[in-house]
Amino acid sequence: MLIHEDRLFPADPGTRSIARALYAHIRDLPIVSPHGHTQAAWFAKNEPFPDPAKLLVQPDHYVYRMLYSQGVSLEELEIGRGEMKDPRRVWRIFAKHYFLFRGTPTRIWLDFVFQELFGLTERLSEAMADLYFDTISEKLRTPEFLPRALFERFNIEVLATTDSPLDSLADHRAIRDSGWNARILPTFRPDPVVDPEFAGFKENIARLGEQTGEDTSCWRGYLEALRKTRIRFRFLGCTATDHGHPTPHTADLPQAEATDLFARVIAGNADVEQQELFRAQMLTEMARMSLDDGLVMQIHPGSVRNHNHTLYQQYGRDIGADIPRPTNYVDGLRPLLSRFGNESKLTIILFTLDESTYSRELAPLAGHYPCLRLGPPWWFHDSPEGMVRFREQATESAGFYNTVGFNDDTRAFLSIPARHDVARRMDCAFLAKLVAEHRLNEDEAHEVAHALTYGLVKQAYKLEGA
Amino acid sequence: MLIHEDRLFPADPGTRSIARALYAHIRDLPIVSPHGHTQAAWFAKNEPFPDPAKLLVQPDHYVYRMLYSQGVSLEELEIGRGEMKDPRRVWRIFAKHYFLFRGTPTRIWLDFVFQELFGLTERLSEAMADLYFDTISEKLRTPEFLPRALFERFNIEVLATTDSPLDSLADHRAIRDSGWNARILPTFRPDPVVDPEFAGFKENIARLGEQTGEDTSCWRGYLEALRKTRIRFRFLGCTATDHGHPTPHTADLPQAEATDLFARVIAGNADVEQQELFRAQMLTEMARMSLDDGLVMQIHPGSVRNHNHTLYQQYGRDIGADIPRPTNYVDGLRPLLSRFGNESKLTIILFTLDESTYSRELAPLAGHYPCLRLGPPWWFHDSPEGMVRFREQATESAGFYNTVGFNDDTRAFLSIPARHDVARRMDCAFLAKLVAEHRLNEDEAHEVAHALTYGLVKQAYKLEGA
Amino acid sequence: MLIHEDRLFPADPGTRSIARALYAHIRDLPIVSPHGHTQAAWFAKNEPFPDPAKLLVQPDHYVYRMLYSQGVSLEELEIGRGEMKDPRRVWRIFAKHYFLFRGTPTRIWLDFVFQELFGLTERLSEAMADLYFDTISEKLRTPEFLPRALFERFNIEVLATTDSPLDSLADHRAIRDSGWNARILPTFRPDPVVDPEFAGFKENIARLGEQTGEDTSCWRGYLEALRKTRIRFRFLGCTATDHGHPTPHTADLPQAEATDLFARVIAGNADVEQQELFRAQMLTEMARMSLDDGLVMQIHPGSVRNHNHTLYQQYGRDIGADIPRPTNYVDGLRPLLSRFGNESKLTIILFTLDESTYSRELAPLAGHYPCLRLGPPWWFHDSPEGMVRFREQATESAGFYNTVGFNDDTRAFLSIPARHDVARRMDCAFLAKLVAEHRLNEDEAHEVAHALTYGLVKQAYKLEGA
Repeated sequence: MLIHEDRLFPADPGTRSIARALYAHIRDLPIVSPHGHTQAAWFAKNEPFPDPAKLLVQPDHYVYRMLYSQGVSLEELEIGRGEMKDPRRVWRIFAKHYFLFRGTPTRIWLDFVFQELFGLTERLSEAMADLYFDTISEKLRTPEFLPRALFERFNIEVLATTDSPLDSLADHRAIRDSGWNARILPTFRPDPVVDPEFAGFKENIARLGEQTGEDTSCWRGYLEALRKTRIRFRFLGCTATDHGHPTPHTADLPQAEATDLFARVIAGNADVEQQELFRAQMLTEMARMSLDDGLVMQIHPGSVRNHNHTLYQQYGRDIGADIPRPTNYVDGLRPLLSRFGNESKLTIILFTLDESTYSRELAPLAGHYPCLRLGPPWWFHDSPEGMVRFREQATESAGFYNTVGFNDDTRAFLSIPARHDVARRMDCAFLAKLVAEHRLNEDEAHEVAHALTYGLVKQAYKLEGA
Repeated sequence: MLIHEDRLFPADPGTRSIARALYAHIRDLPIVSPHGHTQAAWFAKNEPFPDPAKLLVQPDHYVYRMLYSQGVSLEELEIGRGEMKDPRRVWRIFAKHYFLFRGTPTRIWLDFVFQELFGLTERLSEAMADLYFDTISEKLRTPEFLPRALFERFNIEVLATTDSPLDSLADHRAIRDSGWNARILPTFRPDPVVDPEFAGFKENIARLGEQTGEDTSCWRGYLEALRKTRIRFRFLGCTATDHGHPTPHTADLPQAEATDLFARVIAGNADVEQQELFRAQMLTEMARMSLDDGLVMQIHPGSVRNHNHTLYQQYGRDIGADIPRPTNYVDGLRPLLSRFGNESKLTIILFTLDESTYSRELAPLAGHYPCLRLGPPWWFHDSPEGMVRFREQATESAGFYNTVGFNDDTRAFLSIPARHDVARRMDCAFLAKLVAEHRLNEDEAHEVAHALTYGLVKQAYKLEGA
Repeated sequence: MLIHEDRLFPADPGTRSIARALYAHIRDLPIVSPHGHTQAAWFAKNEPFPDPAKLLVQPDHYVYRMLYSQGVSLEELEIGRGEMKDPRRVWRIFAKHYFLFRGTPTRIWLDFVFQELFGLTERLSEAMADLYFDTISEKLRTPEFLPRALFERFNIEVLATTDSPLDSLADHRAIRDSGWNARILPTFRPDPVVDPEFAGFKENIARLGEQTGEDTSCWRGYLEALRKTRIRFRFLGCTATDHGHPTPHTADLPQAEATDLFARVIAGNADVEQQELFRAQMLTEMARMSLDDGLVMQIHPGSVRNHNHTLYQQYGRDIGADIPRPTNYVDGLRPLLSRFGNESKLTIILFTLDESTYSRELAPLAGHYPCLRLGPPWWFHDSPEGMVRFREQATESAGFYNTVGFNDDTRAFLSIPARHDVARRMDCAFLAKLVAEHRLNEDEAHEVAHALTYGLVKQAYKLEGA
């Protein structure tokens, strides 16, 4: 077998049996996935997923960045080259290097997918490559593996995508119109029209104007266009926005200065500092709009995008070369918090790639400001040890109830159950330790486990109605 | 029962039994509390403490910041509104939200107080609110719960308060004069007269001049006034100073420059950078005076005070909105250490809110400079997991003997035994792990446990004589 | 006994037995020591080591920095005073203070040396000082304790020293010429000729010119001299370079600017920023040369050398007063990585003194760039807890196979087996936890343990041939 029923539970027998008991009560709760990068089109069209290489290797930068780091070229993997021509060859390369993932969460997620979805029980290796390829390919062609069938099998109650303001959301509308009863929601991610460094920024803003009938060449019209687009998103069930800024800097400029800054930015005359200031101002503007329209804000700061200049020139964005940078929330968020921090109707969910901020900044901030909540460990830290560090470093200052449950944050639809399972097990493991050390009673631990799995995410993301 | 006799000990049975044995030998040692924020007036007057809301909710920002973060307003809690009018109502709100403290040290401390002091054994909840309120209120009116009786019951050998240089220390003198045989000592905390950003800074310095008969409008007179005030404190048993600076920056300016800087600061002409430089210079001046008068220096840097601008304007200081910031000791302390770092007669105890400095800066510094010692985990980090991180990250470079035992650092007098109990248990848990893994012998672990509980604090704070 | 056969293994009985089984298979593998500070002269001359004070106290700043931090003066320890006059007296001081090392790796290493090498079984203390001194002194005079005999007894397969480009490497040549069949290799550490702040920088460069017959007063000649010297090192088996820079900043200047910068630096006209820029440029130049000659680069950044100004003036460099500083790899390395980061023929091994970078920067970087590998925990972090943090924080993003096994990095030749033993045990303990928690299969853990002990170091440091 690839996965063990006690996986991720503490080795100490007494603690393990507490973890097992906690997990037994929450393992079958529905999946609420309020932030991720699956595609509405899959569910709108409901066509079969392709072969395992295109499905599990090509879109997953967790996978190919590790291979790349060990000298496998992107050419060999047919990454960034359009349609993959020889997926079986790519799959064999992956299989041969599968040992590289020992000790990583990717290994845990994939083994879960291989065994639970595809019934494979012998470890992937070069020798097993073809058996895996054929078994998976065959199953993917059956009706049970169509996107909608999997969605139901996965017991997903809510699934949020992440979408540009320029997206027509046609796929979301198609899902609604199809009469299929599934809750798949868009998320408003305005980076393409609020980040002056985003490719095509100026054109994006022009398109935003066309879409909304607003004059986005001036500050007022631009804000109005954003406001209208948020309403369009809300109409399709959107409850949240998402902001992928290089830093968590915020600003609260006087209107005249903001107007000037926008003019400079839109004219392409803004220097690096002014671009940063513009993004900072836009976070505060988004918070202001959230107070009006109720959308929950998510902030994902601290990534240096496209760190590898050579690859960026060859392959463009999203090639596995985004690297975290030290992040300062305490100074960065202050202007926004000075303005709106005490509004308990506003919800801002903070994420980090800089774990040193958990105990130093994030937990103290979330343990004070009514608007703040802490998102789960993100990206590189969405891993068993990353989850332990988050709970150990955030809980004592912020408590459990200033956190918001789990995000799978994935492009890999098939891995969603695996990822939620890891989070549920790690939360139960953490709670079991508290119970075993008499820091929490077992009845309370059951309540907290339920909240971390289901209650808090629905509350924080305003998914409780409907 | 609210608390378990094995609480906080490791779950592994073998390690737990070692921890139990270590703890059995140190649990009854007297409490030495060399740094905290209790009030001498309580012991001077020896009047009953008020009801539980005024005693346990109102003064404890650990408590109300959590409630505030979850949308309970300060109005509802009657915080910062003078005399509390409906303490039972406030207590009920607190009781209803007590579940928020799961997994936090506040929960551990309060459960200890409820059970060990007040004999309560059923968990606090909305339903239990009145029983708790009445039980606690009633006991607080009995002679056994008067401040002095509790002091004795708690087995406190030394209790230090924290005091402004402008404080007359009348309460401390009253305690002495009363003939009651308890060692309650003032601590010299000069922030009001060395921090140009402190409210009333200029007036404070004028008052310092009046109190000491020195001309504090000039640098020499100002320093002389500080020197005299330190002597006044020492006369009442003070052995330590405390410095709550935004950063650990120090400076060692030539006398002429320091004189000029003081003139600018006192005239209100200093910019933000000069104000910081003045604080930096004053740390070095304080070290110089400590070399003369023997007072131990404590430095508590790295807190952004009054981060929440709106609340600060409404309620003023100390409203639970102080947030840590990244802190650099290695560059900041260098001027002071270049001047006095090799003096083994000088003791400087360093604290931090930035745990990333434990292994990177603090342990390496304390493991070299004879004057440096590491204070225990402070504030947000005064918690079980915080204590584990401190020992795990500081011990291997600095050893146990460059640390100084525990500080409760609390305003909440009733929680003092609970807090020391947590520290003792966590130290025993840490040592038990070392013994179980054959990294330390059990006889040595007993010696270290005693030192961490009793010996080191008395030595570091120069409390051994008298 | 001083050391226990299960030392450093997890306390949980099930996990411990897995750790034991893993360790049993790798404990007797040969030692590969690719980075350290032993002296080739010891093996060239093969003369007896001196008494225990000169051998174990005087050269080991881990030892005397702890004593110094607790008020023992360097005078008492006869540090930095030339030939030690009363080693027995120094040894007694050390023995009396041996308890200070409780909980530190120094204690673990020394107890191993005392028991395994010298057969001592009763703990060192003031009372045992003379017995230890006499026992050790006596053994050191026997043939079994001569450097070459110990080298063979230690089962060392490769031992690398660290050498200045100005070193004639006569001792390395003498070892080769002696016919003794041991692989002792130099490492090219160019700090004396690439760091403008290095004492004697200008003279060093002039000497480099003399040694190589190049005109090192111009940029081209300087680079050519370095290139030639690297070849001279390679000729004696050198496979790696090492770079001890204050920061990991790199630069990739146009040739004209680099030429100008060199001229300014060599003329002594470079300010602090230009000196830093020069070091930054030199890292890129070294990478360029590594691509040609195949030498593996090691970068050891982030230490503030000679932090204690007073001691530096009295005693000079390397007196135990080097302190880590926060280190930024993600921005610092970008110029070099933009140039050469995608070359899988290049190997750059990164070290850190700032543990907050493990999960934030180093693991993400090494998990992407083909040229990058992560060195083991360094210096203050070369300790049991430091090793746990490294594996826990780096493995999930970088995997095991982007790490390079263990470095002892020591001047203390006798401690080499002890240090490798600690690393092997901690790796087995980490792997045992993964197995016990069903995150890795036991057969895989055996493979990984072998790789971490032997395979990866030989591969990363290109020691597989020969």
